[in-house]
Parts: sequence; structure tokens; C-alpha cells
Amino acid sequence: MRILIIGTGGTIASAKTERGYKATLSVDEILEIAGIRGDGVKIETRDVLNIDSTLIQPEDWITIGKAVFESLHEYDGIVITHGTDTLAYTSSALSFMLRHVPVPVVLTGSMLPITEPNSDAPRNLRTALTFAMKGFPGIYVAFMDKIMLGTRVSKVHSLGLNAFQSINYPDIAYIKGEEVVIRHRPELPAGEPSFDPRIDPNVVHIRLTPGLSPEVFLAVAERAHGVVLEGYGAGGIPYRGRNLLEAVSMVAREKPVVMTTQALYGGVDLTRYEVGRRALEAGVIPAGDMTKEATLVKLMYALGHTKDVEEVGGIMERNLAGELSSAF
Amino acid sequence: MRILIIGTGGTIASAKTERGYKATLSVDEILEIAGIRGDGVKIETRDVLNIDSTLIQPEDWITIGKAVFESLHEYDGIVITHGTDTLAYTSSALSFMLRHVPVPVVLTGSMLPITEPNSDAPRNLRTALTFAMKGFPGIYVAFMDKIMLGTRVSKVHSLGLNAFQSINYPDIAYIKGEEVVIRHRPELPAGEPSFDPRIDPNVVHIRLTPGLSPEVFLAVAERAHGVVLEGYGAGGIPYRGRNLLEAVSMVAREKPVVMTTQALYGGVDLTRYEVGRRALEAGVIPAGDMTKEATLVKLMYALGHTKDVEEVGGIMERNLAGELSSAF
Repeated sequence: MRILIIGTGGTIASAKTERGYKATLSVDEILEIAGIRGDGVKIETRDVLNIDSTLIQPEDWITIGKAVFESLHEYDGIVITHGTDTLAYTSSALSFMLRHVPVPVVLTGSMLPITEPNSDAPRNLRTALTFAMKGFPGIYVAFMDKIMLGTRVSKVHSLGLNAFQSINYPDIAYIKGEEVVIRHRPELPAGEPSFDPRIDPNVVHIRLTPGLSPEVFLAVAERAHGVVLEGYGAGGIPYRGRNLLEAVSMVAREKPVVMTTQALYGGVDLTRYEVGRRALEAGVIPAGDMTKEATLVKLMYALGHTKDVEEVGGIMERNLAGELSSAF
Repeated sequence: MRILIIGTGGTIASAKTERGYKATLSVDEILEIAGIRGDGVKIETRDVLNIDSTLIQPEDWITIGKAVFESLHEYDGIVITHGTDTLAYTSSALSFMLRHVPVPVVLTGSMLPITEPNSDAPRNLRTALTFAMKGFPGIYVAFMDKIMLGTRVSKVHSLGLNAFQSINYPDIAYIKGEEVVIRHRPELPAGEPSFDPRIDPNVVHIRLTPGLSPEVFLAVAERAHGVVLEGYGAGGIPYRGRNLLEAVSMVAREKPVVMTTQALYGGVDLTRYEVGRRALEAGVIPAGDMTKEATLVKLMYALGHTKDVEEVGGIMERNLAGELSSAF
């Protein structure tokens, strides 16, 4: 059995410097510190980046995706070490770019640097490796003994070790020692492995807040090819006092405006309330129960393939990689 | 004992229309449907607004705050019914405008319209009324048998009935029948009751996402008096590929840029990572462990009192109404 570990940096690769933690270690160094030798398994490593994941840009997803795609047929599983800050964006991006992977591709990271005592890095690495050896195809995130679908994770804690959750979707598996306990088999669309890195990074995410001025929304929309508008609860756009609905309606004729929600759980349902119906009529595309990370990246992916608002809407409302429940 | 219920609309006041749920009922009608007569307690009502809370604008906080302030000395407790979508913004705004209230001021709402079977409205109203009669001064939110501090709540679910959580802060109390079980007594600054409605609504909240262009950030900042930038994890600003840090640094000399986090729990700590240190050096104001709602409203409040960036920073980093833990 052969497993590839691709390194990109992050806290898992960090050591203390005078200016705070900074990513510096190679995957080989991480494995040595973690005491992981891969008994009976041939582990190979490849460092493609070594940065704090705050610095990850959309172009880096292509670099990582390319490294994965080139190795898909040479390995039984692939693990990617990554900073936690943008891990959910990268796992979503890889899921849209890399379809129908034939082997497990498992992202992991840690909240405490591998160089610190009690770091969660060795444990998370072992979880990722254990799952990567079990042959379940797909793109996953391994964190704190849990395996989650790559398009469904969000970072929910900035300090705690149990930092990731699968949002509006069950966890895929738990690790018990060397055992993998499957909890949910995702239904992923079938097909030949493919790598399609066409994305348009020119997307902006703005939060709806009381008093948000139509002028600011228009200024943002003018400078982007697509807008994610993070509404309240089930979704809706205000038109009282300040007429944001009118501004959104103008923009939505020319560019996709996708509505997600500030509520971590439950998703968007624009048919429920009058304020939501009006948003639908204005041409707003509902994000359903997708995570904010998947929503943003999927919009970049859609815009990388078409600028036609209706076509983008069609892509956004179709389940591509397990990111969207059919009820939505 | 006299209790005042102030109505503002929301799902709790909603009935089904052909175009989805819409707020229409008065507080008296809500009480009648809920079967609440207030045995032994004199309940008075006042409808100040009747709208979906998606439509609430900062100016409405002043209307509601004024209604509360005028009644503080006539009642033993005040309950405010409100839509859930912006309830956490209103509870934060009231907490900053209305200081040292001598009686309980309890906001509540419901996820299902009072006109629906199995609505949570009667239960939430009873929870709010029960706590409002117990004499604990302060501004609170009552939802699903829980009492939470008004500056600490966020709406975390767009569908589930247990829609609110107290973030980075313990719940204040639980309701068990007619009993109030206190879990945590908040340490609120002491003083004379006051109402200070000076706010500057011209604040924008933008989410940091991979690829966010410095031009978009500058366009947003140019049109606002203050910016909330929602970073990743512990906080930090990218400078690789696209130099957002430079743009933020330019803006932060003239206008407050406050950094909050996408992670629901844990808050911002800009001293931890190198990317955070650089943000601090650029003049970014950390939101600590405040909720996103409290952060936005507090920035409006601070800007209503001064446009001086350092003074705004001083206000943001000081605990005014229980919204910020001293460790941050």
C-alpha cells in the first residue's frame, strides 16, 4: 500500500518564532516529530507549499489540485496537511475541481503546532492516514477522530481542538484505534476522474447587517463578478428605510447574487417568508444548506465556466459534490 | 407587579399570507392566542413596530430603546417581542444604548408563528415573562427555556427551535416551570440608568475570503465610517499574491477596521500567529470574544461618539455591557 502526503504548511507545520507561530517544517520533519513511520505502508511525501493558510489564494487550490490529480493513480490514498484557517475553503475547492477521485483524499491539520507538547497534530495525522488507507473514494477532512465530507466542513472554533464540524450533514466516520466506523456513506455523483481548475476568483462575500447601504452593496458588486450575500436566518433582503432589495435586484440581472445565512445551521429557504419571496423574485440565488465556504468556492467555480446569470444559478442549485441536500 | 410587553413584530406576530409569513398581530392578540392572562400580574402592552425583523434598521433600535427607557421606572420588568433574524443585533444595541437598567428587560421571539400549531411562541413568551418578574436587572434574551445575556447571543439555527446560543459566555439561567435556576450572574458595570442613542449606522461588515481583492476592500472602506473585517480563526490578514494587508493598513490610519472571526466560538487573538501580529501592527482593532452582532453594533455606537480611530479602538477594547471577556 502506498500513501502520499502532500504538505502545504499551516499550524501543523509551525514552529515558534519571535513573531508568533509560523509555518516552516516539511512533511518529513512533521512525520519524524509525530513518530509516524507507516508500518507496512509506504509513505511518500511532497511539499507543494509551506505557508500559513490565511495566505492561501484561489490560485493555490489549483497547485494543490494538480499535485493530487497527478498522483491519483500512483497511490492508494492521499493525505494533505493544511492550515486550519482556510482548510474548509480548500477542501471545497478540491471537491469541485477534482471530481470522481478513485481513492481517498483526506485533508487534515492541527490547532496546536506539532512542535508543542500536547499538540493535536500526531493524532489528526494518524486519523487521516488511517482513513486514507481504507479505500473510500472522495475528498474528506479528518479532525479529532472524525471524518467529514470535504464540501460540508466549517471551522467553528478558533481555539478549541474540536475545531471543525460537518454542517447540515452527518459525519462520515469515526476512528476507533485502527478501526474506521462508518456512520454515513455519502452519495457522490459517479464518473471518470477529472481535474477542471477553471475558477474565477473575483467573488465577494458581504454580510447583511441592519443599515447596510445600497450604495456600498452596489460598489462591491460593481467590482466583482459575483456576490455572496450573507442574510439573516432563512433569508430575505430589507427594503424599508434603505432599499437594499432594489440594489440587489439591479445587480442580479447582470451578475449572480447568492444568498447564504448567518445562522451556522439550517440553511436558506427563500420561500418561507415574504421577505424571502421578494428576494427570489429579485433574482437572488439561494445557497440552500451549503456551507459559506462551499458557497463561495462553488460560485468561483461556476463563474469560471460561464458568466451567464441563469447558467450560474443552475450550477449553484445543483448538487455537484455532496455540498447541497436535495431538499433544498 | 406590573410587566410591560413591547411588540415589534417578527414571526411571533406572524400569520400565513399568500406570500409567506408576515408580521401582523398586536401583542394583545399574541397574548390571547397564547392564552397568557398574567395571573396576579398586571400585564400592559405597547406596539411600537410590527415588521419582519429582516427589515429592522438601526434607527428602529432608538425607537425601541426610547420606549424601554420611558417605561423603566413604571414597571417591574419589560418584555420585548421581536423577530429572530435581527434579535441579536437589537439586544446588543439596546445593551449599549440603555445602560444600568434597574429592572429586567427581556427580548424574545419564536421560530414558528403563534398562529401555527406547536408554535414555540407561547413557551418563549412564558419564559421571558417568568424571568422578567424575578427582578434581575439587565438586558437579556429568552429562548427555549434559556436566559442569555443580550450582548452574547447569536442566532445559530435558521430552522430549529433552539435557535439561539450564548457565544463564548455561559447561559444566565434556565426556567424550570415557574422557577428560575440561575447559572451565572453577569458582572455588569454599575451606574445610573441612562439612554444614549447616539450611533453611526454607516458601518460595513465584509468577510475575508481567499482572493478578496484590496480594491474591493478599499471601495467598501471609502463608503463607510468603519469596517468589520471577518477574518479566519484567531485572525490575520493575507499579504501574499494580493496585498490586502497594505490596503487595510492604509484604511486603518483614518477609519476603524475591527477584526472578528468566522469561527462561531473562541474569538480573535491577534498575538498568536505572525499573520495576526502583522494585522495588529497595521492598526487593526481586535474584537476579542465578542459576537459578530455585538461587534457591529458596538462599532456603530463608538462611531456615534467619536470618529477618532484611537478613541474608537479604546471603546471597542473596553467591556461596556458584558460583551467582552477581560482575558481578551
